[in-house]
Amino acid sequence: MLTIDSMVHAIAPLHTEAMATTAHRLDNLTKPLGSLGKLEKLAIQAAGVTGEVLPDLSHKAVIVMAGDHGVCAEGVSAFPQEVTAQMVYNFLEGGAAVNVLAKLAGAEVLCVDIGVDADLEHQQLVSCKVRRGTGNIAQGPAMSREEAEAAISIGFELAANLAARGCRVIATGEMGIGNTTPSAALLMALTGLDAEQAVGRGTGINDEQLLHKRRVVERALAVNAPDRDDPLGVLAAVGGLEIAGLTGVILGAAAHRCLVVIDGFISSAAALLAVRLCPVVHDYIVATHRSQERGHTLLLKELNLFPMLDLDMRLGEGTGAVLAFHLIDASQCILREMATFTSAGVSHN
Amino acid sequence: MLTIDSMVHAIAPLHTEAMATTAHRLDNLTKPLGSLGKLEKLAIQAAGVTGEVLPDLSHKAVIVMAGDHGVCAEGVSAFPQEVTAQMVYNFLEGGAAVNVLAKLAGAEVLCVDIGVDADLEHQQLVSCKVRRGTGNIAQGPAMSREEAEAAISIGFELAANLAARGCRVIATGEMGIGNTTPSAALLMALTGLDAEQAVGRGTGINDEQLLHKRRVVERALAVNAPDRDDPLGVLAAVGGLEIAGLTGVILGAAAHRCLVVIDGFISSAAALLAVRLCPVVHDYIVATHRSQERGHTLLLKELNLFPMLDLDMRLGEGTGAVLAFHLIDASQCILREMATFTSAGVSHN
Repeated sequence: MLTIDSMVHAIAPLHTEAMATTAHRLDNLTKPLGSLGKLEKLAIQAAGVTGEVLPDLSHKAVIVMAGDHGVCAEGVSAFPQEVTAQMVYNFLEGGAAVNVLAKLAGAEVLCVDIGVDADLEHQQLVSCKVRRGTGNIAQGPAMSREEAEAAISIGFELAANLAARGCRVIATGEMGIGNTTPSAALLMALTGLDAEQAVGRGTGINDEQLLHKRRVVERALAVNAPDRDDPLGVLAAVGGLEIAGLTGVILGAAAHRCLVVIDGFISSAAALLAVRLCPVVHDYIVATHRSQERGHTLLLKELNLFPMLDLDMRLGEGTGAVLAFHLIDASQCILREMATFTSAGVSHN
Repeated sequence: MLTIDSMVHAIAPLHTEAMATTAHRLDNLTKPLGSLGKLEKLAIQAAGVTGEVLPDLSHKAVIVMAGDHGVCAEGVSAFPQEVTAQMVYNFLEGGAAVNVLAKLAGAEVLCVDIGVDADLEHQQLVSCKVRRGTGNIAQGPAMSREEAEAAISIGFELAANLAARGCRVIATGEMGIGNTTPSAALLMALTGLDAEQAVGRGTGINDEQLLHKRRVVERALAVNAPDRDDPLGVLAAVGGLEIAGLTGVILGAAAHRCLVVIDGFISSAAALLAVRLCPVVHDYIVATHRSQERGHTLLLKELNLFPMLDLDMRLGEGTGAVLAFHLIDASQCILREMATFTSAGVSHN
């Protein structure tokens, strides 16, 4: 098992020279300067991450981390807890939204049991269970510090393994009934936002259930009293196993010079933890979509990240992240295939 | 040549039965109800447009209409007018951004000379020149009513030809140095917005040039005094030939039950004209991206359309529209390939 310190020390800043070369190349293409906006920024970021102006980004993957949440006992979700395990099998059989979208994008799906409260068996399943679900955060900590660190380490190693197989683009996905509740608790604990701002409807609870969910999250913070300046402690207190795993994926992807493509609310909570543990990780992250979950916009603001897709989605699984793979491909095609002003004989200033 | 009346009469409302069947199918897939947001709406819209729950949307095209603008004599653009013709050759040789993105999306590019102020020749060029550039709208009308109607008719027939070849998804693209100026004039004439709101920087003019451009547009409206309730008259007075052509493409696509995928500011001005000529056309339109050009957000609001991509782009050519083809494909894959709650054995309410 890796320690947080060793993981953080493996992460270096972006390659600024490759970024400058890429920016110069973009400025000579037949278009007004900067007119392809975030696509141009993506191409420059990919150069900074990989150190190559024309990196091979063809191998892409989404890691779907699954875990259960003791706080489901408080009635915070529209779906029963057994759906986590049922959906894991759906991922493994290729029937979920993330499978369909990953197939369209030509990307690999890695499904990881990091904390499902059931015995799961399947040839394709990556079994790394740290424990069977978290504790109920409304009554005590989600997990121990050691368990949180172990889950982060697992995510880090999975990203490392993907990178070793030539993968340069790693998306974060998750499944865990109830997991908007710990994500909101993390957002509040790490920023000081209140429950009205941070807690949303998840998969679709009604007004009364939403008020109840807010009280549950407030209780979780009161009971655990996490210290904002101790991200690992916050994660152990009010987080989730799949969230910890994704924090590790994000750190591991950055350490192995892969683009980290984050999804919605839960993935962004993991990203905020990763950035608090190691600020330079920010530069490795690609924000993809703006989720309908109300806290997501605040999370993105806190991360100073700007999403590219606005699809009113609130599904998770990594679906928004995988949809953005096409935009990464588009940015690379622009960089490689467009004519220059000189080659096309087009006038410019 | 078709008359506006005959074109408008060829357009029917969406198929509501196919839409209801599609919505029902989506609700049985393994995801919270409606959680794929605009992707679900796209699948339902495609059913309404085509009348088929599982339409074949594989044949996609972008029509790039090119035209010049007499108002360039007022110094409203950062690029010289000859760039229009130069870029047409760039499209025809496959070197422009829209070519690269269309290739990635597996879509056809149709490049049309509807009003370039130069003699163009190329095997792939669709030559339908109505006249060599518009008149200077700061001094008089852009074109005659007859010319505007002719340009609309050309666009309508091009869409009809694509539909006859099996194309069901048609994107609107354009090239015309100076064309954010008539687009802003159209927006103001059709809505009553003022120049501060509607006029932006186009391909990248400075503060002083922007102030000048606003005065030019105000002069165009004062000189021509277009009647808001006469869309064809507004188009002839302060529009452009490529804008008129795209208005026709939008009407023609709707008449032939194709999805109309619109791009940025100029395409949206054409869409507003099409909707004013025939309100039901609205339901055939897919909004794609939010351009950086300031008037675009107001145009989309006027059209009551909600874009899916937020990429800070301001290139035109149809680039944003073609990027959204992937989202149309994604919505169709979701509809066809996802497991249902029953088939996957997942609990739901």
